[in-house]
Amino acid sequence: MKEKIYIISGTNREAAVSLQVAHIYQDVFERKGVESEIIDLQNLPDDFIAAALYSNAGTHEGMKDMRKKMKEGKKFLFVVPEYNGSFPGVLKAFIDGLIFPDSFTGKKAALVGLSSGIQGGVLAMSHLTDILNYCGTHVLARKVKLAGIGKNMQNGEITNDLYNQLIDWQVDEFLDF
Amino acid sequence: MKEKIYIISGTNREAAVSLQVAHIYQDVFERKGVESEIIDLQNLPDDFIAAALYSNAGTHEGMKDMRKKMKEGKKFLFVVPEYNGSFPGVLKAFIDGLIFPDSFTGKKAALVGLSSGIQGGVLAMSHLTDILNYCGTHVLARKVKLAGIGKNMQNGEITNDLYNQLIDWQVDEFLDF
Amino acid sequence: MKEKIYIISGTNREAAVSLQVAHIYQDVFERKGVESEIIDLQNLPDDFIAAALYSNAGTHEGMKDMRKKMKEGKKFLFVVPEYNGSFPGVLKAFIDGLIFPDSFTGKKAALVGLSSGIQGGVLAMSHLTDILNYCGTHVLARKVKLAGIGKNMQNGEITNDLYNQLIDWQVDEFLDF
Amino acid sequence: MKEKIYIISGTNREAAVSLQVAHIYQDVFERKGVESEIIDLQNLPDDFIAAALYSNAGTHEGMKDMRKKMKEGKKFLFVVPEYNGSFPGVLKAFIDGLIFPDSFTGKKAALVGLSSGIQGGVLAMSHLTDILNYCGTHVLARKVKLAGIGKNMQNGEITNDLYNQLIDWQVDEFLDF
Repeated sequence: MKEKIYIISGTNREAAVSLQVAHIYQDVFERKGVESEIIDLQNLPDDFIAAALYSNAGTHEGMKDMRKKMKEGKKFLFVVPEYNGSFPGVLKAFIDGLIFPDSFTGKKAALVGLSSGIQGGVLAMSHLTDILNYCGTHVLARKVKLAGIGKNMQNGEITNDLYNQLIDWQVDEFLDF
Repeated sequence: MKEKIYIISGTNREAAVSLQVAHIYQDVFERKGVESEIIDLQNLPDDFIAAALYSNAGTHEGMKDMRKKMKEGKKFLFVVPEYNGSFPGVLKAFIDGLIFPDSFTGKKAALVGLSSGIQGGVLAMSHLTDILNYCGTHVLARKVKLAGIGKNMQNGEITNDLYNQLIDWQVDEFLDF
Repeated sequence: MKEKIYIISGTNREAAVSLQVAHIYQDVFERKGVESEIIDLQNLPDDFIAAALYSNAGTHEGMKDMRKKMKEGKKFLFVVPEYNGSFPGVLKAFIDGLIFPDSFTGKKAALVGLSSGIQGGVLAMSHLTDILNYCGTHVLARKVKLAGIGKNMQNGEITNDLYNQLIDWQVDEFLDF
Repeated sequence: MKEKIYIISGTNREAAVSLQVAHIYQDVFERKGVESEIIDLQNLPDDFIAAALYSNAGTHEGMKDMRKKMKEGKKFLFVVPEYNGSFPGVLKAFIDGLIFPDSFTGKKAALVGLSSGIQGGVLAMSHLTDILNYCGTHVLARKVKLAGIGKNMQNGEITNDLYNQLIDWQVDEFLDF
């Protein structure tokens, strides 16, 4: 049986498209008979940066569940919206608050980038690859770039056939990775 | 007269070495007759990620002063500790919460990286350069890498002569940039 | 009077679009009353990698002129086609064969990326920025991304108004940089 | 039985340390019972950039053997010396001249960086990871950084115990990747 996949919706912005894309991936995993679960950064505690980082890492009740899942999971799909030419600061802060090295060493990740503009999160995913590799997590070569996401989604579904094809290929490759 | 420099101490970690390095730069600027002011990310509000980003950007009283300075300043020196192979998530979140594009377009930045290990924040500064350039801020070519910072500081001073020389060169170049 | 600009056409591929784009920039510089000259990597000697690098750097007659210009020039516009997700290897090899540090320290560069696909050379320009900064050259924040270049050029002219606008803005900013 | 590993010595510089490091890895592979073969970029034809790239890719007799191996191999260990803050231009030019996509899709790579300075090829390996991932090759998370290589080698052997340990770990992980 295939490993359960954890899908990280990489922003705490309300009503984020990232969460919709996370659900789209969850549907694809389900269609292929693989269990997945979404870790939604909207659930980060309000006082996250003060009470759940550095010497406080691990003490915040509101982080216990997410940290446990990131420690136990083996495969992670990161949905990465592009904010100011890279990933959301909150996504990196989330990583900074996890359990080291158990959340990362020898694990596997796949990345999907979203942008309203034409870049599709290329640099965001390059930066995140550097970080994940540094932490010991292997990154799937194929990174899906969903540029112009606003024009390519409707009612929570991706309307661009190429994008759906790329997602399908990536999921297949990730399950074999 | 030279422009006032804003020095961003790039982490909210308590008792951070970054803040000490920020003070060292402030002393160098002062010695050269240039005014500077430290913006310390330890002063970010506890509920920063919930109440000062996205649709809430600009509404939080505790951010008004920092946002105003980042908007009005022309030259920024970023002190960037290396966390997990890049900059602290909190530093990028701080950037995500600023006023666009007025905080960035046509401005100038210099970067200094700190690490306890041997990397000296090389990737952190590469990533931050991508972000600042994307936002419209020019970055000084010389980036100072303070690797092994723990062994090279004592009582708030840098004890490594080469490091002090590099800082001095960088400051001179930044004042002319 | 404004400094003369050297425009590097960043590939030795025959009939490269990069050379056409170099000429377009030259026209823009001329219209603004600024002298420029194209350094075309198609002129690299055939035996460049064997006879003009490392211990042979500086000995090849066919490189004398290009090396002299890169040493004496102060401002460089790099036209960077995207090959395999980054810049052409030949462009980096050209850099590896220049005079250090005189070709780089304290100089200024602007970058324009070309791609047939949607990426517009984003990663190519990020990598090149790292290299130029490492060598001591400041890079203009605004990097022009000419994605889908095949569909946006005709008879040596760019037919996309936005692209022409971006080039114009970049040139103005570069002249003031 | 384990796949044969191809070790790319990433420069055509004569008497390069990279080739020595390639041999060190070959010894480690042999000790672990795994066949490997070195592809030495010193063997690139002198007229490589003129006669073996773009429309000439595949026609040069002197490249036939190397291109065939890169097409047939499944696992590649890249030895990457740091030149001007990144990999050698010649290494990227070599990649630009390979068979696409058959040399890359679904394959696996491990990277080791060398530098005389303190950086250990960090940016070189970050850039190369971007390129390999773009081309469809998965990159092992652990990248070995051999900084200050001049002081840490003698008679073709690495004298730094930590470096030898890191190489050993990397090889074990790569064989299981």
